Amino acid sequence: MEIFYAYESDGRTCRLDSDESAHLVRVLRRRAGDEVHIIDGEGTMYRCRLTDDSPKAAEAEVLEAFPDWGAHPYCLTIGCCPTKNNERFETFVEKAVEIGVDCIAPLIGERSERKVYKTERAERIALAAAKQSLKAKLPKISEPLSVREFVREPREGLKLIAYCFEGDVPRRSIKAALAQYCQAGERPEGLAGNAEVRAIGPCDGPGAAGNVGPGSVGLPQITVLIGPEGDFSPEEAAEAVANGYIPVHLGPSRLRTETAAITAAEAVYFCFL
Amino acid sequence: MEIFYAYESDGRTCRLDSDESAHLVRVLRRRAGDEVHIIDGEGTMYRCRLTDDSPKAAEAEVLEAFPDWGAHPYCLTIGCCPTKNNERFETFVEKAVEIGVDCIAPLIGERSERKVYKTERAERIALAAAKQSLKAKLPKISEPLSVREFVREPREGLKLIAYCFEGDVPRRSIKAALAQYCQAGERPEGLAGNAEVRAIGPCDGPGAAGNVGPGSVGLPQITVLIGPEGDFSPEEAAEAVANGYIPVHLGPSRLRTETAAITAAEAVYFCFL
Repeated sequence: MEIFYAYESDGRTCRLDSDESAHLVRVLRRRAGDEVHIIDGEGTMYRCRLTDDSPKAAEAEVLEAFPDWGAHPYCLTIGCCPTKNNERFETFVEKAVEIGVDCIAPLIGERSERKVYKTERAERIALAAAKQSLKAKLPKISEPLSVREFVREPREGLKLIAYCFEGDVPRRSIKAALAQYCQAGERPEGLAGNAEVRAIGPCDGPGAAGNVGPGSVGLPQITVLIGPEGDFSPEEAAEAVANGYIPVHLGPSRLRTETAAITAAEAVYFCFL
Repeated sequence: MEIFYAYESDGRTCRLDSDESAHLVRVLRRRAGDEVHIIDGEGTMYRCRLTDDSPKAAEAEVLEAFPDWGAHPYCLTIGCCPTKNNERFETFVEKAVEIGVDCIAPLIGERSERKVYKTERAERIALAAAKQSLKAKLPKISEPLSVREFVREPREGLKLIAYCFEGDVPRRSIKAALAQYCQAGERPEGLAGNAEVRAIGPCDGPGAAGNVGPGSVGLPQITVLIGPEGDFSPEEAAEAVANGYIPVHLGPSRLRTETAAITAAEAVYFCFL
């Protein structure tokens, strides 16, 4: 099943950009009248009939709409410091999209080796992964922010920071923190003192503005932060905790940054499975 | 913490091969008398003193031994059909080692696009990942077998096959199958009729001969099969089920082969977290 992406769709007509049009018409040789499957990137897949087979600006008429196509039952933001080796971060982007993620926030930490990050390549990888894994919603790849800027943003739901916290700061596993949060939207108890966790809230909270499509409203919202190769600085971690982030560990294995981020996505996926 | 690998160690002396010796002596400029950390690939990390700083055949004297260093509380074999794109399979190998795996069995399925697989590169990647993630035990990368040959091998413990089983074969999630197995070693009920699952057995069962180090004896043994891009053939799947493999799904997401294999490793990891 080959999927295409419409940069514009009003529920009746889907318009493809030049890349998608060229692939559809030049590579796959689809012609006006053919049936095609098109996602809008916001959660809906349309079964369409191709009406204009221009290889630069193809258009298709909607026959049937499938909202929440390939959706998952949560709204997950992963804030992760891009790795020095860009391909490793891109592996995380691809795998996270396959597993299920709503927003990927590249973060620049005080100990990040990579201080600049351009989102274009990650966006292309996310689009390819969404099409390949049959998901109609594209994750938002936000513009890079410093860790401190990010943790100050208002944000609903469960907020977790995976941090080594060398010393005696108590941590629980991400599995335990997620399990407690998911139990009927109860307020977690016995977590870090500063942690202010609300009951399961809407995915369209203030911090998530623009991050989520219509299908995500009302889903449990979860944010997980993953630091750079050298970890968060103690000051960044303290500021995150002061802003309601709960320190968690990802288990006994020492994981690379991108593996930790993939593992966080898997932990949430399995919590809701 | 830089880790080296000894191709030979008797508990008193560790011997490094030419690659490891060159890295230790030429690149990192360690000299006789320096303290070094060396794994034996079977589960033990040795704190050593370098006695011979030959860049071709370094040797070190053991000062202290740490058995089961970086070990996980299960013995996991993942049988996976190598992807057409070799790098994707290697991503799985690296991530699985970081997360925790004991044996990686490359399988050739009837629908595999890749019919030949050489294990050398995967072994190098596994070694690098074990050193990087601070694990003293290297997974065994077995020689490729056909899916049918593999499923006929005697094998203790829980045996799972992730397969689409289009049609009405009942499947449970890998999470549910693992949870039931792990509950006090009870025999799973309500699974596929042909499934013969033993109580948690030793990791040194017949099928695992040579696959596991001494630290794995007595651990729950789990095998998961992941098919090629085109899935297992119905005949392969039927033969697996006839040999005691339980059909499972990995959740609603459609995952690439290597992502499915990573996800299986994560499912086991989180089950025991």
